[in-house]
Amino acid sequence: MVKVAIFGASGYTGQELTRILLGHPGVQLVAATSRRFAGLPIADVFPSLYGLTFLKYQNSTPEEIASICDIVFLALPHGVSMSMAPVFIAAGKKVIDLSADYRLRDLATYEAWYAQHSSAQILKDAVYGIPELYRLKIKNAKLVANPGCYPTSIILGLAPALKNKLLDVSTIIADSASGVSGAGRDPQTGSLFCEVDGGFKAYKVGKHRHTPEIEQELNALAGEKFAITFTPHLLPVKRGILSTIYAALKKDITLPEIYALYSSFYAAEKFVRVCPAGSYPNISSVCGSNYCDIGIVHDPRTKRIIIIAAIDNLIKGAAGQAVQNMNIVCSLEEDAGLKTAPLYP
Amino acid sequence: MVKVAIFGASGYTGQELTRILLGHPGVQLVAATSRRFAGLPIADVFPSLYGLTFLKYQNSTPEEIASICDIVFLALPHGVSMSMAPVFIAAGKKVIDLSADYRLRDLATYEAWYAQHSSAQILKDAVYGIPELYRLKIKNAKLVANPGCYPTSIILGLAPALKNKLLDVSTIIADSASGVSGAGRDPQTGSLFCEVDGGFKAYKVGKHRHTPEIEQELNALAGEKFAITFTPHLLPVKRGILSTIYAALKKDITLPEIYALYSSFYAAEKFVRVCPAGSYPNISSVCGSNYCDIGIVHDPRTKRIIIIAAIDNLIKGAAGQAVQNMNIVCSLEEDAGLKTAPLYP
Amino acid sequence: MVKVAIFGASGYTGQELTRILLGHPGVQLVAATSRRFAGLPIADVFPSLYGLTFLKYQNSTPEEIASICDIVFLALPHGVSMSMAPVFIAAGKKVIDLSADYRLRDLATYEAWYAQHSSAQILKDAVYGIPELYRLKIKNAKLVANPGCYPTSIILGLAPALKNKLLDVSTIIADSASGVSGAGRDPQTGSLFCEVDGGFKAYKVGKHRHTPEIEQELNALAGEKFAITFTPHLLPVKRGILSTIYAALKKDITLPEIYALYSSFYAAEKFVRVCPAGSYPNISSVCGSNYCDIGIVHDPRTKRIIIIAAIDNLIKGAAGQAVQNMNIVCSLEEDAGLKTAPLYP
Amino acid sequence: MVKVAIFGASGYTGQELTRILLGHPGVQLVAATSRRFAGLPIADVFPSLYGLTFLKYQNSTPEEIASICDIVFLALPHGVSMSMAPVFIAAGKKVIDLSADYRLRDLATYEAWYAQHSSAQILKDAVYGIPELYRLKIKNAKLVANPGCYPTSIILGLAPALKNKLLDVSTIIADSASGVSGAGRDPQTGSLFCEVDGGFKAYKVGKHRHTPEIEQELNALAGEKFAITFTPHLLPVKRGILSTIYAALKKDITLPEIYALYSSFYAAEKFVRVCPAGSYPNISSVCGSNYCDIGIVHDPRTKRIIIIAAIDNLIKGAAGQAVQNMNIVCSLEEDAGLKTAPLYP
Repeated sequence: MVKVAIFGASGYTGQELTRILLGHPGVQLVAATSRRFAGLPIADVFPSLYGLTFLKYQNSTPEEIASICDIVFLALPHGVSMSMAPVFIAAGKKVIDLSADYRLRDLATYEAWYAQHSSAQILKDAVYGIPELYRLKIKNAKLVANPGCYPTSIILGLAPALKNKLLDVSTIIADSASGVSGAGRDPQTGSLFCEVDGGFKAYKVGKHRHTPEIEQELNALAGEKFAITFTPHLLPVKRGILSTIYAALKKDITLPEIYALYSSFYAAEKFVRVCPAGSYPNISSVCGSNYCDIGIVHDPRTKRIIIIAAIDNLIKGAAGQAVQNMNIVCSLEEDAGLKTAPLYP
Repeated sequence: MVKVAIFGASGYTGQELTRILLGHPGVQLVAATSRRFAGLPIADVFPSLYGLTFLKYQNSTPEEIASICDIVFLALPHGVSMSMAPVFIAAGKKVIDLSADYRLRDLATYEAWYAQHSSAQILKDAVYGIPELYRLKIKNAKLVANPGCYPTSIILGLAPALKNKLLDVSTIIADSASGVSGAGRDPQTGSLFCEVDGGFKAYKVGKHRHTPEIEQELNALAGEKFAITFTPHLLPVKRGILSTIYAALKKDITLPEIYALYSSFYAAEKFVRVCPAGSYPNISSVCGSNYCDIGIVHDPRTKRIIIIAAIDNLIKGAAGQAVQNMNIVCSLEEDAGLKTAPLYP
Repeated sequence: MVKVAIFGASGYTGQELTRILLGHPGVQLVAATSRRFAGLPIADVFPSLYGLTFLKYQNSTPEEIASICDIVFLALPHGVSMSMAPVFIAAGKKVIDLSADYRLRDLATYEAWYAQHSSAQILKDAVYGIPELYRLKIKNAKLVANPGCYPTSIILGLAPALKNKLLDVSTIIADSASGVSGAGRDPQTGSLFCEVDGGFKAYKVGKHRHTPEIEQELNALAGEKFAITFTPHLLPVKRGILSTIYAALKKDITLPEIYALYSSFYAAEKFVRVCPAGSYPNISSVCGSNYCDIGIVHDPRTKRIIIIAAIDNLIKGAAGQAVQNMNIVCSLEEDAGLKTAPLYP
Repeated sequence: MVKVAIFGASGYTGQELTRILLGHPGVQLVAATSRRFAGLPIADVFPSLYGLTFLKYQNSTPEEIASICDIVFLALPHGVSMSMAPVFIAAGKKVIDLSADYRLRDLATYEAWYAQHSSAQILKDAVYGIPELYRLKIKNAKLVANPGCYPTSIILGLAPALKNKLLDVSTIIADSASGVSGAGRDPQTGSLFCEVDGGFKAYKVGKHRHTPEIEQELNALAGEKFAITFTPHLLPVKRGILSTIYAALKKDITLPEIYALYSSFYAAEKFVRVCPAGSYPNISSVCGSNYCDIGIVHDPRTKRIIIIAAIDNLIKGAAGQAVQNMNIVCSLEEDAGLKTAPLYP
């Protein structure tokens, strides 16, 4: 049994990691930290887990946690992870970091969009954790930089098209919408039920911090440098991200040919489902699962392709992908602990 | 007092018309028809109206209704309106038609996207009912073709930019999301609570029937012919449409200059609110009102402009705009019966 | 025009008061205070009100506000109102207090359930503000203690039955459920969208502070002293309270006779609607209005009567009833500013 | 591997059975019937299951299904099950019936509340399927009558109290609220998103068909005959039932003693969680799981006990309990296929 710990376990992502790891056949959850809830049973904070664990949140140092686990999940805000990760690396422990701190390979870009980096020296040890693109590198990584939720949906949605040079990359627009759990569990006015229910709005238009992360990976896939337009919206749902992605086709290609490329690209993947032609993804069809569903439409009137990708932002967009990465790092079955079917309705 | 009737009054749009007209100081609602609920008090079908009206749904012919009203609202499916409207026109009564039957000025386009037209001879009497664009024509129209909900948001969102030739029109993409009331009150699996709640999906991608209507008006505004990409999504809310519209700028213009153009364009309008810079519309901020809220973002990284427009689909997107048109036709104050502030939260 | 001010105007109740008063034909809103948002336009905090008012929140003393208004609404937490109200009374201004500070006529009960009272000397000037029960007293009151949301639904639901001695008062159980706006706009974990959506739970069972307020009025109606069981629940909706009230009948009476009593009791009331027999209230049928809808069921198998009452907690349960009380105090039409039909769906 | 079939698999309960059985380690799903969707892949109707099964809905006779399975789930409306079950019994196959047809041991009661029974002769072979009460009988039953959703929550909530004679049984009132999936997937106006969202109402007050089923089991537990008041409400959520149950205590007993009785009663049960004192169940804490959570409050002011029980109506209230029963009948681990933790948030 692999001994795992969660650093920062009392947010929604931390809870989701806890839930998944408690049901994982190959690991033992040895510690979960929370400053706010230190000393309290996890099940007091999340009664859904009552009876499933007797673990209490602890307020421990990274050194203490590193001494008792084989691998650690950092479910911390950006800026905090960067102060913790080096301790685990130094102790020879594997790190799955769910913050943004090690996702951007270019330090200057990180510091332009986020803040000064205090542990840039270990950036070279980090691998961007989309298994469908970087499986082999992840296997040997000391630190996996688990992707952002929006980027996961957009990168998986575009990867086959970019790899196959189908698109005029200067025309890419990603219009995304996320459930509220993406904003975390800290009380803030904008996440109140009365502010969100019945509403729908765009936010941080043109300046969301996931933009450089998306561009880094899309550029790598296409083998050229370009910028995209990315517009996030807030959905009145708890879980789910849907990205509707627009681009002009630069190749003369039919929709069935595009479907064939996508199906072939993801043929061996357990967690990417290319929807049957004519069927589009719905976030409620992936809710509670690690799936990314992808649908494709060709609009001959405007010569554009429209790619739609749906994930559960807390699972494939966070905790589930993190466990998938852990499974790869630890040589477990890649879908261990992640076989749960979507919960519908 | 103007005598008004509603033909097809038991759907969501019909109910909304009923509610607004009952509170309108200048009109008297003399009849409301429904085949399904004929004989039942309106308040039995919609208990929210209990105590506000004793009117019963009746199953009457257009001729009967024409004989007792000055103006009629047709809240009927497309294909049905076209068989009713000529009766009212022939009787010298004004018609506000909420179907799609008279919105497309080009008969061939109508028949390509919808069905054969049985009363094309009165198309010439119809005026497309966006008061902000066609106020004078509406005033003298025999028949006002009340716009579709999606088109209202997109046309109002783009009008100042197109009139001022700011955009590369070949790049326009409208990504819209609507509340479920847009699908009507007829029971269908896709509108069930369990199918919609917690979900979000695109539908009819690249083939929604509002596309030619949007293009007709955008082309007229720009003075040139072009196609757009329009993607509707289904939101888990009852009311509201948000359209996020993308286009490349072809003019060198600053965001404050764009705001100035928009503010000036809509300066005299009571129902269009240009949001303060940095603030984006939310459907919950227009819910229950006839407002269209518009926000604008300039993305210098990609030289695109992003325009966001929000309406209540049942009000500015249907019944409210219909009453606004009636007010113009009947020389009433344009906001009579429509002064209700949005209901928030 | 009556000059009105709102003290504490940036919560949900304060916003609702603002919205109603801006649309009220007989009053002028001269000031709205908020410490948190002082200096900001109201419409910046609540964009739904954009274009409807240019007023800014101000951070003023009660003395300053008293000098410019005829009547003030105190939309403050309990414990704060009691320090403000005496200033307005001393200045000869009428007060509508939406806190709990002056609702309990018995000081000891107040101090047992709430806290020490700092202005008990003006308790004698306060009238409990349910117009349907205390209209004449309200007319001459210096201070109207606006009822709590749960109590309003339960008291109106039981008043005719208690006045007519129908019930074994020892058996009364009120099972209520409220929308989240009742918890206010301050950010707290329990009001987050992700905590509330998809959920339903009881809270403060057997110890909610509305209990003594409900009992005070029910006891007064029945003319005897008794305790009730009151269980509040949290609903995943923004607005609305439904109270399902159980009691054993002590009189041999038929359901039509009970309906007759209720209809007669509320015959002259504009804001209480006794539903047709066989029809039960739904909070969505009163949403956005000042109505209280009441339905009655007789269960002959258990000889119990079940009374169901629905209100919009922010309107009849708070701001609407407060304006209704203001109208009475100021000799305006009782429904002035409150004629809006419920917004459905 | 046990060979299982689902008769009537395209409703919400049928889908939930499908989902659970596909993830069950000890069974093979050999057939799923649906007249409406015959010939279509299950995953076309429920895209959430895409990739998890290639099974198609078939329109087969009971005889055909009986010939290929060891045990069958009947997820059919009452009145239909009674015509199918005898075929399976005659073929020597075990039946888990999710309809009401075999729940009431008294034929006259069934026919008074439902309809004429066409296979009353096999009522004697039926066992009411609450494992916590009838485990041994279930083990040997030919037919398990899977309980209704409301009854499950109320019976589990009251069982320890009734077994221990704590309650004045003449005072029992069960106030329940259910998510919309309980109404099934057939399109009907009352289940539309726009009719349900933002709403809350009681329905079928005093006459819901679950009443005799609840009374049958409560009477059996108490060893005496009595009637209860049961009021169902419709919640704007997809899944979940919360029952708040009121009764007068007839024994002098403290809350800790009651908790001790409950904890002891359910000590060996895997799917009943007695909440820590002071903590009340929330339907969102059991969502997606087979748990029943129970909380208890003592109101010394009124000498009443308030018991609150929460389940996921599609799992412990239907498909999950059905699989639990199947596990018992087939001598599998009782929680096989049912270990999924609740999905929160």
